[in-house]
Parts: sequence; structure tokens; C-alpha cells
Amino acid sequence: MVTMEPSPADAVACRSPELGWRVRIAGMGRYLPRRRVASAEIEARIGVREGWSLAHSGVAFRHWADPSERASWMGAQAAMAALQQAGVDPAGVDLIINASGSAERAIPDGGPMIQQEMGLGESGIPSFSVHATCLSFIAALEIAAERIHQGRVDRALVVSSEIASVALDFDTPEVCTLFGDGAVAWLLERAPTDCASAIHRIAWMTNGLHRDLTTVRGCGSFRHPHSSDTLHGDALFQMEGRATLRQATRLAPQMLARLGLDAEQRERVRWIAPHQA
Amino acid sequence: MVTMEPSPADAVACRSPELGWRVRIAGMGRYLPRRRVASAEIEARIGVREGWSLAHSGVAFRHWADPSERASWMGAQAAMAALQQAGVDPAGVDLIINASGSAERAIPDGGPMIQQEMGLGESGIPSFSVHATCLSFIAALEIAAERIHQGRVDRALVVSSEIASVALDFDTPEVCTLFGDGAVAWLLERAPTDCASAIHRIAWMTNGLHRDLTTVRGCGSFRHPHSSDTLHGDALFQMEGRATLRQATRLAPQMLARLGLDAEQRERVRWIAPHQA
Repeated sequence: MVTMEPSPADAVACRSPELGWRVRIAGMGRYLPRRRVASAEIEARIGVREGWSLAHSGVAFRHWADPSERASWMGAQAAMAALQQAGVDPAGVDLIINASGSAERAIPDGGPMIQQEMGLGESGIPSFSVHATCLSFIAALEIAAERIHQGRVDRALVVSSEIASVALDFDTPEVCTLFGDGAVAWLLERAPTDCASAIHRIAWMTNGLHRDLTTVRGCGSFRHPHSSDTLHGDALFQMEGRATLRQATRLAPQMLARLGLDAEQRERVRWIAPHQA
Repeated sequence: MVTMEPSPADAVACRSPELGWRVRIAGMGRYLPRRRVASAEIEARIGVREGWSLAHSGVAFRHWADPSERASWMGAQAAMAALQQAGVDPAGVDLIINASGSAERAIPDGGPMIQQEMGLGESGIPSFSVHATCLSFIAALEIAAERIHQGRVDRALVVSSEIASVALDFDTPEVCTLFGDGAVAWLLERAPTDCASAIHRIAWMTNGLHRDLTTVRGCGSFRHPHSSDTLHGDALFQMEGRATLRQATRLAPQMLARLGLDAEQRERVRWIAPHQA
């Protein structure tokens, strides 16, 4: 995600990389599970020295959901908080996109699951899911923002709700100390004329070659829970952290190049928020 | 999906339900697993009389994938066939959307998996997944078509690849005789001026209240394969066919009403393709 200050010149170009989607965040919400787990608790369990997690990845604590805090329920709490912040009634939502890298069930997807947990199960509000692993929220944001910009939708909820704690591999300190559970939601709407909020440019790259660097191999039709060749670890999250970071670092310049920013525009970039721990 | 003959009047209305997205199918492809399974084979296995499946649901045979025919591999075969029909090089694709109700793995999603199986794993071509259970293809079609119409994308692949056979419940004749495996792909592009192909209107309703009518309860964070309360059936597809059909029938008039067709436009609807066996 790149945040830029707007420039009058941006609005002139036609069929340029400039999108100029006039969208803003009307409300934000989150839900964190009640149980807060200190790194020391995990470190004692797996037998690494206290402080290893903080030193290795900067994580001092995380939250883990209990069985009553299902992903769709957590997502609904975050969504309702976003609506409350915006002062918008749940029935005023035109679109709900579940944007989670982890699913609660295989079928149906999390869209109708969250909708139902919000008390909107008979509303008919269109609800579906986008899955792009860790970038699911960004992928869904693009879809929602485009529909708002085009005037097809007035208000859209984008919700990510993740429960990683059920799939942690306690034989891999790097993984089991890194991930927690939680949910976030944004309510998006058209930016009013006195608000400068906009999505200016989007660039997206996918390299499937590296599919095994961060993976849960099972829980689908391959290494299905009932298949005779399925291993215990197939239902767990597996990550080669260093190799992933290396690829992300290698590809970042190409990504930025795809945004098509000239030197003056690059100067105006204020924040770069990379997705890497 | 509603197919209409175009009318000159449609183009006039501004901010009407009429989208007028100028998109066409440049190529279609499919892949069917090598193993074709006659209904009689399943009927003998589960102990119902021969001919029950054909009489009950009209299914005489289906295909089941073997372990070498993974979902992303099947999807790639379908995608390559669609490209071949269109005479388009794989590198000429700007977007790949995996639109499957069943996943091959939990992480990553099927987008990069299919991309890699197409030999495009280092191409950077944006690839992600849309999940809306049986309507995943339609949901992805909307996203791809909108981007083509807006000129953000020239060519998009929408790919559905489903392996149901690993999750069949052989205690439920209605389910285990109904579902098979296979993959389809469409290559979409802007319709040339001499081609009338267009997406005119889209209406979408989601009622999460009925989430349990067709479901795979497990394989996610709820009833995770390693959870102590997970049951064998949680990894299997479960369906209340009659109740699902009843809801679909009840809601169909509302769906059609949302399309906003007047009497003359309704007259011009030539095909309605309901998703029900």
C-alpha cells in the first residue's frame, strides 16, 4: 500500500496508471480474542529461552481464540464496530467481502457466514470471499473500492478474520511464536468532495513458483483429512521465513516500478507498509 | 445468468441497472478426469438399486480425479485449452482468477497454484481466488468483466476446478451420486464493435441464514482436522437438497425483480440457467 498526497496533475491524464478512485474509510473495527498469550508461555512450552520471540520477530504477545470465538463471529464483531464508528445501520451495507487467508469452514465461504453472524442472514446483502493469502484484505479492498467509485455500491464492508492458532506447528519456533488470531473490518464509502481520500494506483504481482514458501498443504482436495497419504503437518502452517523475505525484497523494486511513478511522484510517497514481520 | 438480446434503448439510460459491459468470451476450455464412473458402480457400492441415480437426479456418470490430477493442474489444462481456442499466448493474460468452491490447499489460494501449473509461476501475472461456493465462477466473472470494461485489464482468465470426490459421504446416496470432478476456464476480453456480446445487468443475493443447507463444516479453523471435537463427517460435503431447492425457488422472483427488467425486457429473456440439479 502506497499513500500519496494528491496532485492536480494526476486528474488530467486519461487511461494513465492513475485511478483516482474517490473512496474513504467511513469506519474501522477490530476484535481481539479474550485470551492474551505472552511469548514466555509459548517459549516455556517449546523449550526455547525466554525472550527469544521478542528478539527474533518483535512479538511480545498475541491473542488466541477459544472455540466460542469462531472466525465469522469475530469478523462480525469487527464489522459491527466499524459500522458503529461510522454511525451506519447494518442494513445500510450493500456488499460484504470476507477477505481472510484462513477459512472457518470449507463451504460455504466466510461471506455468508459473517453476514449471518451480523444478524443479516435474511437481508440478501451480497456476500462472498476473496482469498489471496496474506494479501486478501488488499485484494478485496480493490474490488470494493472499484464498485464504490463506479457508483454500483454505496457502502461496502471488507472483513478479515483469521484464526491461526489451530494450525500452529509447535516444532517450529519461528512459526508458533509469530501468529495470533483476530479480526478487522473497514466500512468503505464514496469520499465526499471535501475529503482528499482516494486510491491512486494499484499494482499487483503474483509468483506461483514460490507456493511452497508459506503454505498449509492440506485441508483441501490435496492431502484431504481422510486421505491415506495425509501427514499430520499437512494441516499446519509451514513457512520458510528467510526465503520468503528474500523474494519479497528482490521483487519490491519491480512492484514499485509497476506503479509508474515519476521522480516527483516518488518524492511525495510518505509511507510504505510492507507485509513482512 | 440471464441472456438478453440487446436493445438500442438500453444504451440511453444513465446510472440505470443497465451495465452495458462490452465483454466477450474469447476462448473456453475444460478438463475432465480420465476416470469416468458410471452410476451403477456407485449404486452397487452403497447398495441402492441400479438406475436410482439417473431417476433421482438425472446423473448417468461423472468423472473422478486420481491423485495425479490435482485441482490446480486440472484448472491449468482447462485454462490452456481456452487460450488455445482463442489463439492467445499464456503471457498475454493480465489476470487469473481461481473461482472454485473447493480448494486444493488451504494456503496459498488456487490463483497462484493454477498460474504455476500453467508455467507462469515467475510471470507476476496477478492471480487470486474468489469463493462463493457454487456461484464462485459467476462472482469472478463479474470482477473480471468489470476490469475489462473499465480498460484496466485486456484479457482475464476465470477458472473453476473442483474435486468433490474426496469429500463424498457414501452414507448419503443423494450426495455421493450427484457430484463429480472437473475444470472449466473462460478467457475474457473486450468485445469488438461488431460483436453484440455484453453483460447487461447483475443482481446478487446472499442469505447466510441457510449456511447449513449445503456445507463442509470442517477443514478450516472450526472443526480443524486436529481438533478433539472434530467428527469424521466434518470433512465431507453435506446437503439438504430439498430444503435448498425450496429456498432457491422461493427467492428466485426477488432475484429477477432486482434485475429491474420492464415487461418488454422480460419478453426478450431467452434463457434462464438456474443452478440446481
